[in-house]
Amino acid sequence: MRYIGVDIGGMSIKAGITDENGHIFAKKTVVTQARKPSEEIVGDIERLIRGLLEEQGLSLADICGIGLGSPGSVNDAEGVVRYCCNINFADTPVVGILKKNLGFENIRISNDANCAALAETLFGAGNGASNSVTVTLGTGLGTGIVADGRLITGNKSAGAEGGHIQIGIGGAMCGCGKRGHYEAYASASALLRQTETAMKKHPESLLNKVAAEQGFDGKTVFIAAKMGDKVAKRVLDRYIKYIGMGLVSLANLLYPEVFIIGGGISKEGDTLIKPLQEYVARNIYGAEFNPPIRVVAATLGNDAGIIGAAALTMKD
Amino acid sequence: MRYIGVDIGGMSIKAGITDENGHIFAKKTVVTQARKPSEEIVGDIERLIRGLLEEQGLSLADICGIGLGSPGSVNDAEGVVRYCCNINFADTPVVGILKKNLGFENIRISNDANCAALAETLFGAGNGASNSVTVTLGTGLGTGIVADGRLITGNKSAGAEGGHIQIGIGGAMCGCGKRGHYEAYASASALLRQTETAMKKHPESLLNKVAAEQGFDGKTVFIAAKMGDKVAKRVLDRYIKYIGMGLVSLANLLYPEVFIIGGGISKEGDTLIKPLQEYVARNIYGAEFNPPIRVVAATLGNDAGIIGAAALTMKD
Repeated sequence: MRYIGVDIGGMSIKAGITDENGHIFAKKTVVTQARKPSEEIVGDIERLIRGLLEEQGLSLADICGIGLGSPGSVNDAEGVVRYCCNINFADTPVVGILKKNLGFENIRISNDANCAALAETLFGAGNGASNSVTVTLGTGLGTGIVADGRLITGNKSAGAEGGHIQIGIGGAMCGCGKRGHYEAYASASALLRQTETAMKKHPESLLNKVAAEQGFDGKTVFIAAKMGDKVAKRVLDRYIKYIGMGLVSLANLLYPEVFIIGGGISKEGDTLIKPLQEYVARNIYGAEFNPPIRVVAATLGNDAGIIGAAALTMKD
Repeated sequence: MRYIGVDIGGMSIKAGITDENGHIFAKKTVVTQARKPSEEIVGDIERLIRGLLEEQGLSLADICGIGLGSPGSVNDAEGVVRYCCNINFADTPVVGILKKNLGFENIRISNDANCAALAETLFGAGNGASNSVTVTLGTGLGTGIVADGRLITGNKSAGAEGGHIQIGIGGAMCGCGKRGHYEAYASASALLRQTETAMKKHPESLLNKVAAEQGFDGKTVFIAAKMGDKVAKRVLDRYIKYIGMGLVSLANLLYPEVFIIGGGISKEGDTLIKPLQEYVARNIYGAEFNPPIRVVAATLGNDAGIIGAAALTMKD
């Protein structure tokens, strides 16, 4: 069985042919002409798909489904990109146009983060789980929910915004203008803020030395903590607790088999993952009689977008 | 199309025959012999179903599906009641036994609260919504999640425990032993505690007079607030804000079309529902571009259990 996944990005559009196990055996990329009219961008996607098939000596008749991952707000059921800040998509019926132009019926679309979550769940760190929550720690905090093997995105796909669940009454200000949201405590940006605050308060800490020597970024606190700096360890312990608190809320509500942690910080591996695993095990509701929940780091990297887009069409 | 729904309770087991619109046209009840061995209780259910069919001049061949709602922790996929504090069910494969004894294949089970949520969503206050969250305010705070027309219950059905999402860091103690959970702020019991605290602090308030004259319960604060008591109004405003905070977290994550509020307090109607509706509209993520979310009171009352159990078998 062969599927096509298309990962639409602000810089490039990548298409890949996969099998039913999420293995990519051919890829093709074009530059995104983000300011073109939306119909023309969809035209570029169509040519990319046709070109990829041609290179592989295949035709659309060899393909079971075509999936698309787009940034921005996507209405999955209607196949429409509602808006997208870095590509000229606004209420663009991407799926409808492609179906018509390709003369191909099984085409689906979802938000790119949802695609990545589906890919990791089925073919990456999730190892084929049916129920997962993927939490991506970046500038914001993104979540992708899979329940019974299907993406859960809410009415008009307006949901799965787990960065905006409450974890504190009042508390830290979120990018969305409300206080106390998960993202305001547990995104990579939040860790940077927490680290900076500690550096100002403790100028004697190794944090400042590491930042001065290696540049200040999300790794600073991990490096200083590994060197034994107590201030860095405190920042990190508290940050991990914040991530954990959100995971516990998500667990009690959605009870996944696995939490998949993505974003640059997830590359810190066991330093992050092990204490998170312990926090979740200790704090979930009914820990004594409910099944354990794994916490793992994402593994698919940049291919997750293509694989997840393809996977959108693998289940009815 | 005819379906059977069975609502298993600690006091009685109620079975009903419904059509595909959730209309009940015949019911039959037996007393629950909760301390009998579990196989015998399942035998009682079998006899109840056969008796109900016989009374209606029907046979199993006339029935499309049989659904069961059970209290306690139910593993929906495996058809097993894992434990139940008030009936002698422990790891009882209720569905398997019934399938064998009735010689009937399409039998399903879920937790009784999930059944009620499904019934309200499809045939009650939800008015046929595909995505809903039902929040029942009682001794605890229960949630039932419907996404794309299906109950979402998590791995081994251990989820949908929305009473145990975090809304405050630290904060009020929950019945489960953790702090800051939604249930600790927004259950009917939490309202009683909040009212009591206000009564002690403000012995002059109408709250104390109403409680002395009419007895103290969940209605006390509503009655005093309607009489113009400022202390009662403050308690109520804060309580509604607590309920709203949880709804907003649930909305940002699951983005339902409708929140269905159940439990005795939901009978207060607009006093409760209107400000909740406003709170949700004001505080959900992306309120300016996402679809509105309705907040409504549950309408089906005691029949929700039978109707929702039947509905378990209406969709593949």
